[in-house]
Amino acid sequence: MSIISRLVTFDNPAFNGYVTYGSVLVLKMMLMAPLTSRQRHKLGVPISPEDAFLSKGKEICKSHEDVERVRRAHLNDLENIPIFFLAGFAYLLTDPDPTTALNLFRAYTLARCLHTFVYAVVVVPQPARGLAWATGFFITGYMAVKAICHFKTF
Amino acid sequence: MSIISRLVTFDNPAFNGYVTYGSVLVLKMMLMAPLTSRQRHKLGVPISPEDAFLSKGKEICKSHEDVERVRRAHLNDLENIPIFFLAGFAYLLTDPDPTTALNLFRAYTLARCLHTFVYAVVVVPQPARGLAWATGFFITGYMAVKAICHFKTF
Amino acid sequence: MSIISRLVTFDNPAFNGYVTYGSVLVLKMMLMAPLTSRQRHKLGVPISPEDAFLSKGKEICKSHEDVERVRRAHLNDLENIPIFFLAGFAYLLTDPDPTTALNLFRAYTLARCLHTFVYAVVVVPQPARGLAWATGFFITGYMAVKAICHFKTF
Repeated sequence: MSIISRLVTFDNPAFNGYVTYGSVLVLKMMLMAPLTSRQRHKLGVPISPEDAFLSKGKEICKSHEDVERVRRAHLNDLENIPIFFLAGFAYLLTDPDPTTALNLFRAYTLARCLHTFVYAVVVVPQPARGLAWATGFFITGYMAVKAICHFKTF
Repeated sequence: MSIISRLVTFDNPAFNGYVTYGSVLVLKMMLMAPLTSRQRHKLGVPISPEDAFLSKGKEICKSHEDVERVRRAHLNDLENIPIFFLAGFAYLLTDPDPTTALNLFRAYTLARCLHTFVYAVVVVPQPARGLAWATGFFITGYMAVKAICHFKTF
Repeated sequence: MSIISRLVTFDNPAFNGYVTYGSVLVLKMMLMAPLTSRQRHKLGVPISPEDAFLSKGKEICKSHEDVERVRRAHLNDLENIPIFFLAGFAYLLTDPDPTTALNLFRAYTLARCLHTFVYAVVVVPQPARGLAWATGFFITGYMAVKAICHFKTF
């Protein structure tokens, strides 16, 4: 049996954890859309002219800090989560200790959920957002570096 | 033979469909770049000062609704399609009925193409864009939830 | 042995190259965050009101061309690199010549690093940025088209 079929298998808890937490992160990112939408309707900031009817009765404005805040949180997800999907999979192929791998996936998912919460739901003063962001950032970096050192096929 | 090698194989039409439609979505997203570019040159909205020469003879402006419209469609792709790549693969590993899986990939791809068309090519009044977006959104959500329920390794 | 286990294996240099260069691209994208951050602090452009303390002593402004430039380079990465991850993997499954595949991964990674350099580090006049962008664009397109022609399960 090749190494890869021992790693990418339902018998490997690290692989199951990758798929589970990856899917949780997908749902977390999906949540940003209704979150933005709610702010847009509440504050009367349609994204496109044809959506103006949604803010009926309210004065329409081009932008609002509370809409921009949710959009920045969403953009930060786009900057971080898709690269985690690749780095997490590459890391999985380096045959890591399953418990360590699972804990890293857990920590990453928790950090990204906290990031969204303190950025876009309840604004908590810094360094809350900075710490949540940095946790995710360094986990992704560790995984990518470990994969490069393992595969090193340049 | 392990379950995973029965799923991730050229004999599984759902897997072949995932790769095919994934690649079609890659091409669809690539199309946004020339689409934006065309609007920028037509309307004289260079993205960076060093690109001003491309709009020769035209008055230069900082932004234009018709450029912003294509950029919003592109951003919406970025918010939706990379997470579909992960959710679609996770869903594939839950051993779905191949026909159902293929139909979901077809519906998703069609919905995203329609979304771009009614948002950035020919502006169709709502709810056209909303429906196209929601179709893709709920398919991704269904796949992610199904994968979480199947793998549930927290 | 199925074809796929011959392709997705540590014995296939193209697969090892995909994981290595994928991880390098992850690190390259991660670099955009400190790059943006440096510009924000240097020029006094906090991303959110709660970050204003970071620009102590400096006058605070809403935006600055040198911050926007790095952000555009980052956005361009988001538009291009996640779809390369999918297209590169799909291409790998078409059983390409390993040397050709490795060279394409090398060229893509180099092109994207150059793109960032001439866009956001040292501003080089066009067509430097255009050529770097086009190299990555056409490699991704080639891979996606090759995968569609190979799998063609619609």
